[in-house]
Amino acid sequence: MEKASGGIQETTLKATIAYDGGAYVGWQRQISGMTVQQRLEDVLKQLAGRIVTTHGASRTDQGVHALGLVVGWKWDLKRMPVEQLRRALNGLLPADIRVLKLARAKAGFNARFDAKWKLYRYRILNRDVADPFRRAGTWFIFGKMDVKAMRKAAACFVGKHHFGAFAVNPGYERTSMVREIRRCLVRSKGDEIQIEVEGNAFLYKMVRSMVGTLVEVGMGKRPADSIRTLLVSRDRRQAGKTAPPQGLYLVKVFYRRSAARVIP
Amino acid sequence: MEKASGGIQETTLKATIAYDGGAYVGWQRQISGMTVQQRLEDVLKQLAGRIVTTHGASRTDQGVHALGLVVGWKWDLKRMPVEQLRRALNGLLPADIRVLKLARAKAGFNARFDAKWKLYRYRILNRDVADPFRRAGTWFIFGKMDVKAMRKAAACFVGKHHFGAFAVNPGYERTSMVREIRRCLVRSKGDEIQIEVEGNAFLYKMVRSMVGTLVEVGMGKRPADSIRTLLVSRDRRQAGKTAPPQGLYLVKVFYRRSAARVIP
Repeated sequence: MEKASGGIQETTLKATIAYDGGAYVGWQRQISGMTVQQRLEDVLKQLAGRIVTTHGASRTDQGVHALGLVVGWKWDLKRMPVEQLRRALNGLLPADIRVLKLARAKAGFNARFDAKWKLYRYRILNRDVADPFRRAGTWFIFGKMDVKAMRKAAACFVGKHHFGAFAVNPGYERTSMVREIRRCLVRSKGDEIQIEVEGNAFLYKMVRSMVGTLVEVGMGKRPADSIRTLLVSRDRRQAGKTAPPQGLYLVKVFYRRSAARVIP
Repeated sequence: MEKASGGIQETTLKATIAYDGGAYVGWQRQISGMTVQQRLEDVLKQLAGRIVTTHGASRTDQGVHALGLVVGWKWDLKRMPVEQLRRALNGLLPADIRVLKLARAKAGFNARFDAKWKLYRYRILNRDVADPFRRAGTWFIFGKMDVKAMRKAAACFVGKHHFGAFAVNPGYERTSMVREIRRCLVRSKGDEIQIEVEGNAFLYKMVRSMVGTLVEVGMGKRPADSIRTLLVSRDRRQAGKTAPPQGLYLVKVFYRRSAARVIP
C-alpha cells in the first residue's frame, strides 16, 4: 500500500493482457495513432474518475500482437476491488483487447524495469495455399522451407551480441546495441513454422529483422552460418528484410521471483 | 469432356474452397449484399472472358464460414489448365477466400445435387474471459457449461426427424422438413466446446438453432431429453435461440464414391 498525493491509498496492480494488434500503432501511447495503452488508460480514467498512468513491459510495434503483455498501474482498491475491476475493464475495453489476469503486486513493482526476459513468437504459414482464417495472424510463405537450416541459423543468435545488423532505427546507435538472447528456436507445428526468441531486451524491429533473415536461410538464399558474419558486421543492409508485423506475438514476460510476487 | 453451345470443349471442375464468411451475406448470389459466389464468378469471368456459372454444395448463411465447401463449374481447359487456374484464382480472389483444391470431376458432376452428407462444426469459446484472436471465429460463452448433458441432448438429434422446431423460415412449411442427421457430437477441445453435426441436408438456420438449444442444455436451462419433446412439437418458439453465425463452419461435403471421383 502506498500513499498518493491526494491522500488516497493506492496499491500497485499487475495485469496480463492480450490484444490483437491489427488496429493499433503499438502498445505505447503516441500521437501518430491509436494505441493499446490509450484504450486501457481511457477506460481506467472512466472507472477511477481521474487520470491513471500505466506502464507496459514492452512497447510492441504497429500491428504486433500480445498474448501476455504485463502492465502495471496504481489503483485505489476502495474504489473498486481487483476482480470487479478486471470484469469492468473487459466490459468496457474493445473486443480486440482483453485483461486475462489482474492481481495485486508487490509495492514498487514496475512492469517495464523489473522485466527480466521477454518471449516473442513469430508464426509463418508455410504451405502451398494461404488460409483465410490466419491471414491476420501469420506470415504466409509459399514454397517448402528448410527448417533444419533455419534451426542452425537461429542457434547463432543465442548469447550476448551487438545487434546493429538487426535494428532498423539508426537512433539506437547512440546507446548500446548489445542485447542478450537466451533462447532462439525454430519449430514445425503442422503447416506453420514458429520461431521463438527469448531475450532481455530488444531493439526496434529486432525480432522481425531476425525472422526475415532466418526466412532467407530457410529459402536457401543465404547459408545458416552467415548469421555469425552478420552479427559481426553490425550492418543492417546485409541482413534480411524485416518480416511483416502480423505474424509477431509477445507471448510472455518473465520477472525476478521477488518482483513477480503477486499478493492474493 | 462435354460440348458447350459455342463448340468449346468444356470439362467439369470440382473445387474445394475455404472462406472467412465475416464479410459476406453467404455463399449464394443474392441482391442483398456481397456473396462468395459472386466474388468467385467475377474472377472466373475475368479469366474465361465470358460468364461462368458455379454450383455450390451448400448455401451458407450470412457470416458463416467454410473450411471445405465444394463448388463445381464447367471450364475450357485449353484456355487454362487446372493447376494454373487454381493459382490464378488464388491470385485474384480476395484474401478471405481461397481455392484449396481444384481437379477435373466426372462429366455431369453437380456439387449440389450429388452431395450426400455435409459436416458442420460450431465452435464455442467457454472460459472466463473472451479471446481477442477468436472473436471472429467462435461464440464466447462465460460460465462453465455441462458438456455431459449437451452430449446426451445432441444424441437425440441423430436419425430422421421433422425439424420444424429448428428451422427459422416458415416458408419451409410448404415442403418437407424431414432431415436426416447421422452424427451429432459435442467435444471439449481445450477451452472450446465444439459441436459437430453431419446431415443429408439442413433447413434455414437449422444448425444454429440446434446449437442454441444445446447451449441452453449446457447452461442447465432445459433438460437434455427435452430435445425429443421439441422435435415432436415442431414448434420453433419452444427451442433455444439461434446461435450467432461467426462460430459456424461448413467443414466437409461427402459424395457418393462414383460422383466424387476426381480425374487426375
